[in-house]
Amino acid sequence: MLKLFYAPGACSLAPHIVLEEIGEPFELERVNLREGAQRLPAYLAVNPKGRVPALASDRGVLTENPAILAYLAQSFPQAGLAPLDDPFGFARMQAFNGFLSSTVHVAFAHAFRPERYADGDVAAQAMRAKAPQALAAAFALVEETFADGRPYVLGDQYSVADAYLSVFSRWLEGRGLGRLADFPKTAAHLERVSGRPAVRRALATEAAA
Amino acid sequence: MLKLFYAPGACSLAPHIVLEEIGEPFELERVNLREGAQRLPAYLAVNPKGRVPALASDRGVLTENPAILAYLAQSFPQAGLAPLDDPFGFARMQAFNGFLSSTVHVAFAHAFRPERYADGDVAAQAMRAKAPQALAAAFALVEETFADGRPYVLGDQYSVADAYLSVFSRWLEGRGLGRLADFPKTAAHLERVSGRPAVRRALATEAAA
Repeated sequence: MLKLFYAPGACSLAPHIVLEEIGEPFELERVNLREGAQRLPAYLAVNPKGRVPALASDRGVLTENPAILAYLAQSFPQAGLAPLDDPFGFARMQAFNGFLSSTVHVAFAHAFRPERYADGDVAAQAMRAKAPQALAAAFALVEETFADGRPYVLGDQYSVADAYLSVFSRWLEGRGLGRLADFPKTAAHLERVSGRPAVRRALATEAAA
Repeated sequence: MLKLFYAPGACSLAPHIVLEEIGEPFELERVNLREGAQRLPAYLAVNPKGRVPALASDRGVLTENPAILAYLAQSFPQAGLAPLDDPFGFARMQAFNGFLSSTVHVAFAHAFRPERYADGDVAAQAMRAKAPQALAAAFALVEETFADGRPYVLGDQYSVADAYLSVFSRWLEGRGLGRLADFPKTAAHLERVSGRPAVRRALATEAAA
């Protein structure tokens, strides 16, 4: 059985949502980031990078959200969570997820964990001060995705990219780094995604954890 | 015909190598980053993110290296550049490429382009000072990939992940941010990859550009 190592509210929410969408049994194991469990030997044996998410399968452990999300979509094709028969459509989804991972998440990380990128209070303040600007630029690009009125990242088809985007849309306003209302199509997207039963279940589980 | 927008020595070298490995005709278009061509309307119409690489196909433009590289491997299966029939192996490759994109490249970017992440000279200096430490930690994880003596990232099979890693191995020492000899298995990997005719051709083309 697949087992997701996660932390409530972290970006591991994306594969958590996707596992709920798939509807097959899975296990969850919480990693207590506040207590530093991600840096203890027990977790480093699972993921030497000391981050969540990690997805354990009988073949081994996977890390990095774009890889985990694509793997889940490929492993459960009946869930219809990616354009699996269209390499170009699949690549567009992976490009979107890659942007979320390497640009959007990284912009948030400069506000949340500036010590990853530089030492000292002046630098930390400067990174925190710049994060809203970097996020506004990134969300302006995300907003363009929906310019043609499409409901989901890939058009009419809901995919793992929608679950992943919803995590960051939720963070933007929740963590005080921007106003989601400045990106009305992305705000509507979050509302659309949040109404899905799988998303409600994942959020409820993480809130109770 | 596929067209790669690239800059000599940038991370667009990875898809350039892969296009050479595939051996089908392709076009190259240089984006002059030093002159700021990536921020001009002509290029922003290709890639609104203003970065290289971008891969133009008859279906549209793709961005983000992990997505582009996987797309090339999927589109030319006869080149054998990814474990296309094994979703878990494919996901391991994507996880590795995702780590290069969201952690390794980002660590370099703090040295090369600190203005992306914070304003001010103090912050820029602090980010430049931290980059070698972040890169040493990241390359230590990469080095573990080769702990079992395997020649390539995925084992015995050369894949797009090897082309992508070679870009950053080359940068580490070339840009004065670390000693590749501190990671001897990764150094041997770079040497192994650099001996491939496709890699030599891509490097020669970029050196002459």
